[in-house]
Amino acid sequence: MAKGNINVSVENIFPLIKKFLYSDHEIFLRELISNATDATLKLEHLVRIGEAKIETGQPKIEVKINKEDNTLHIIDEGVGMTQDEVKKYINEVAFSGAEEFLEKYKDSDAKETGIIGHFGLGFYSAFMVANKVEIFTKSWKDEPAAHWTCEGTTEFSLEESDRTTRGTEIVLHINDDEKEFLEDARIDELLVKYNKFMPVPIKFGTKEKELPLPDDAKEDEEPKKVTVDKIINNPDPAWTKQPTELEEKDYNEFYRELYPTQFEEPLFHIHLNVDYPFNLTGILYFPKLSNDMAMQKDKIQLYQNQVFVTDNVEGIVPEFLTMLKGVIDSPDIPLNVSRSYLQADGAVKKISSYITRKVADKLKSLFNNNREDFEIKWNDIKVVIEYGMLTEDKFFDKAQKFNLFPTVDDTYLTYEELEGKIKANQTDKDDKLVVLYASNKEAQHGAIKSAKDKGYEVLLLDSPIVSHLIQKIETEKENKVSFVRVDSDHIDNLIKKDEEQASKLNDEEKEKLKESFETVVPKEKYTVQVEALASDSAPVMITQPEFMRRMKEMQQSGGGGMFGMGNMPEMYNLVVNANHPLASQILSADKKEDSEGMIKQSLDLALLSQGMLKGEALTNFVNANFDKLQNS
Amino acid sequence: MAKGNINVSVENIFPLIKKFLYSDHEIFLRELISNATDATLKLEHLVRIGEAKIETGQPKIEVKINKEDNTLHIIDEGVGMTQDEVKKYINEVAFSGAEEFLEKYKDSDAKETGIIGHFGLGFYSAFMVANKVEIFTKSWKDEPAAHWTCEGTTEFSLEESDRTTRGTEIVLHINDDEKEFLEDARIDELLVKYNKFMPVPIKFGTKEKELPLPDDAKEDEEPKKVTVDKIINNPDPAWTKQPTELEEKDYNEFYRELYPTQFEEPLFHIHLNVDYPFNLTGILYFPKLSNDMAMQKDKIQLYQNQVFVTDNVEGIVPEFLTMLKGVIDSPDIPLNVSRSYLQADGAVKKISSYITRKVADKLKSLFNNNREDFEIKWNDIKVVIEYGMLTEDKFFDKAQKFNLFPTVDDTYLTYEELEGKIKANQTDKDDKLVVLYASNKEAQHGAIKSAKDKGYEVLLLDSPIVSHLIQKIETEKENKVSFVRVDSDHIDNLIKKDEEQASKLNDEEKEKLKESFETVVPKEKYTVQVEALASDSAPVMITQPEFMRRMKEMQQSGGGGMFGMGNMPEMYNLVVNANHPLASQILSADKKEDSEGMIKQSLDLALLSQGMLKGEALTNFVNANFDKLQNS
Repeated sequence: MAKGNINVSVENIFPLIKKFLYSDHEIFLRELISNATDATLKLEHLVRIGEAKIETGQPKIEVKINKEDNTLHIIDEGVGMTQDEVKKYINEVAFSGAEEFLEKYKDSDAKETGIIGHFGLGFYSAFMVANKVEIFTKSWKDEPAAHWTCEGTTEFSLEESDRTTRGTEIVLHINDDEKEFLEDARIDELLVKYNKFMPVPIKFGTKEKELPLPDDAKEDEEPKKVTVDKIINNPDPAWTKQPTELEEKDYNEFYRELYPTQFEEPLFHIHLNVDYPFNLTGILYFPKLSNDMAMQKDKIQLYQNQVFVTDNVEGIVPEFLTMLKGVIDSPDIPLNVSRSYLQADGAVKKISSYITRKVADKLKSLFNNNREDFEIKWNDIKVVIEYGMLTEDKFFDKAQKFNLFPTVDDTYLTYEELEGKIKANQTDKDDKLVVLYASNKEAQHGAIKSAKDKGYEVLLLDSPIVSHLIQKIETEKENKVSFVRVDSDHIDNLIKKDEEQASKLNDEEKEKLKESFETVVPKEKYTVQVEALASDSAPVMITQPEFMRRMKEMQQSGGGGMFGMGNMPEMYNLVVNANHPLASQILSADKKEDSEGMIKQSLDLALLSQGMLKGEALTNFVNANFDKLQNS
Repeated sequence: MAKGNINVSVENIFPLIKKFLYSDHEIFLRELISNATDATLKLEHLVRIGEAKIETGQPKIEVKINKEDNTLHIIDEGVGMTQDEVKKYINEVAFSGAEEFLEKYKDSDAKETGIIGHFGLGFYSAFMVANKVEIFTKSWKDEPAAHWTCEGTTEFSLEESDRTTRGTEIVLHINDDEKEFLEDARIDELLVKYNKFMPVPIKFGTKEKELPLPDDAKEDEEPKKVTVDKIINNPDPAWTKQPTELEEKDYNEFYRELYPTQFEEPLFHIHLNVDYPFNLTGILYFPKLSNDMAMQKDKIQLYQNQVFVTDNVEGIVPEFLTMLKGVIDSPDIPLNVSRSYLQADGAVKKISSYITRKVADKLKSLFNNNREDFEIKWNDIKVVIEYGMLTEDKFFDKAQKFNLFPTVDDTYLTYEELEGKIKANQTDKDDKLVVLYASNKEAQHGAIKSAKDKGYEVLLLDSPIVSHLIQKIETEKENKVSFVRVDSDHIDNLIKKDEEQASKLNDEEKEKLKESFETVVPKEKYTVQVEALASDSAPVMITQPEFMRRMKEMQQSGGGGMFGMGNMPEMYNLVVNANHPLASQILSADKKEDSEGMIKQSLDLALLSQGMLKGEALTNFVNANFDKLQNS
């Protein structure tokens, strides 16, 4: 048996890197800026613990493009490297400088300073875009500077450099294929995407700034302009601070920083801050939401120690919260794993349920502390809350305290308040509580009015997933509660009381009336029901049973829709009020044409009130009525 | 100056691979199957050119899971390796075996056999999921078998093996973190995703198959079952064949193979087949499309030599064709570049315009060969064609020949036919051709009827982007054509002819009528226009000018909407017909209440006919009409 060493030569490492990177070439810049940040934080740490006795000033990182030479430069003012360190950290690929550094200073505050990169590892990603890379570097120690060059082959060269300033400059000679990385706009885009909140200031270019006019300025004097550094990032983003250091306006300003093209203010924020059993900071915002849920997903940004990682937080944040915006920063989220592993990971599960709990607590305290304001915001936040109630049982339980049911009169009730208010009047003869609701105040105006005339409360429930939610609530309440849309039957049938309306027509007359209607209206679409209702109720109305409509809605909004109801044709009930004078009038008409004419006109009016009279029928109705008006 | 060699030791290569792979661990299986395929195709090639004088039979690749040992096995019956070859191809990371092989046999048909992988390079991705990897391999040459083992450190061991069958078996000892790759369902999913159409049969597990009953079977005899190999892939997918070898049903079967959960048949297919100046094969299908364009994007799958690469073909296929389905296979699409580079790449541009041309040619021949069928399919394909005309000028030009304009009477006209048909009757006094259209036959029934009564043709244009397209056509025709929706004004105003209607009212009366209407209808919403129209036209109607409505629509469907029109409040014209008897009747009413009553009722009827009478106003209208009916 032979033993040996696998020989990985450097000319083979570049194809390997390229092979696995596909279209993500752009991350080279993130890697190099991470290294530069690392070097800067290391130096500050050494100064703090007294090992490096030097004045660092306010170190920054600079990114420069030289279009003439086709080079991109990343310059830091950090620890720098001696020639020996270059040999050690650069020439031994993937030798992790940061790890060794952490090992050495593990008892000091190195961990808190958040050393980011693993020098050497990310460095080679430079060869994705450059055919030649140079390093000019001078250590904080009193040693000569070094100049390292490599053209993507086995060989490197290392010599002394006359550089006198402390820190490291990386020079990338950009490939012909990757010229995009010599464009100001592209580099600016990348710096903003990945490094917007990194902890060391990053300079890219300059900008002009107007100086304030002196007190004795002449009237037409122009303000003087000076050129100042353009700093790309905010090294101290809000989420790295304590909630006590921040005011409402700071949170709103940070929201604007995160989403510069977003003009609306967020409704409120939730500051996340935990360090045991996992480390996580962040700020989540409730934005104003529309009903289109898909549009607004995936706006939360995931960072690790202030470096942008992704805006896909699927599996980390519970799905109903992916409609929120904001930032999560955690070094404890494993990234080198597949999504399915991520979802099974214990730490990630804990993070997800911590976030859910924080959101529920915040909503509860907003409701308790300023109910009026909470009600004003309800319409914008209800989709998240309702979706959360549907998908997370723990959230469902907590949300009982703050989930609101708005009425058509713009009052807002918790479930408990609603129950108290309607129990006396809206319990039917089988002791079931009947909750009436409308989905559209305009379209269901007639039915709402009938219900309110009876003293009933009518809710306005218009979210896209509400049919799923009321289904769930009914099940939770063991079907002792039933939600019915106010136009799904005649109001007297929706909440059946013991008293029955006496019928003005006898059974024979009712049967005759039914037959008359059935000869006129299409049978496959309408089921005619003659019922004894209040004489001042509508003479004829069209209704669609709650059960069938809800199943259809549930299928349309995804899931639910048992028994294939979603595909059934539309079926309506045509309710004829036996006690309305018009019923007797139709029965007692002398000629068949007269009774048929009245039935047709009744049907037209019933259709009209549901917005169901259309096309030619509507044109004919309108023309006939113009004629009547003209001849009146 | 020092020169030296960068030292990349193997313990550092694993973190490097992991670092850059993030969540894509699953691709290790694709890489190993590619290598196995490569080895099999190499052997078949050597046999074909007479260098290997052996019987290969029908070689396959087998994937096996051993849950007890936590191992995953990939076994091929290909060339295999001698100990020397293992040293060369495995121990020298990234030494490309396939390249050397191609170099050696460059004058034979090696290129056509489509050697896929680069052995050694992809192999190391195994260490993303395994902490120990073994290779058992026996070359087709008469040499002893080899057994290589590596536990992810610098060291490997290599010894003789007692393996006697030709080929290679890779054994992965799966990490605790990656146990998902020991689940049948997960491996099955990956094989189907990446290897469904690879050229060597891949066995994964077995299935039972019923044997046919013998002729002398007894009545209650059960058919015998045998266990047979379950083959995951189809090694000869339709796109690798010539169009002449395939019938319509083969294309439909392949569609079903690609999209097993898709129940609808495709409308038609386009077979792509070109080898100069680039190599590309594939089959595109026109599926039935709904109006929701976002839902059906990104269904085209991109392969390279039968290995699945991605279903994101953005930048390779023109955007309007991303709504199609199917397969594109091309080794000439660069993958190791960023998207922005891809879009600027010359070869990719040529591929994109080749595909566009083929699609246009196919549509034209479908139209020419079977116009009736083309018209039946029009509703399902129009979105793609219209979107293509909007975004690709070359396609716009070609589409003139087959782009159809349906009328409300279900006839279909090309632009040329349409022009011929309406020129005489629908040219206005300024010599402009006026094309009338509706977007909804039901809702615009009244206006369509008025237009047809005049002998005008009315198109039915109801795609979501049609306002952009007609805007473009008008510009192309240098504004000598104007599209107007049939309800955007009174029909006499839409196509202004020389003859003017004489007015039955004088200017003073018209002004008085206008003032009467203005006291009743809200000014901020309606502009009252009293006009002399035909006396049998509607007395009062509500219209919305074409220009404003179209701008709003264009903004809603993205883009367009110059001058910020999209945010303007809804404004309507209230057109009063001075020649209708009702106008005189209103003017000559004795009491103010009478004229106001008639105006209010006219407005209600005009609103009704546009579906704009809603809520309380509608309830009141219906109730009042029930009262009238009862007292009639």
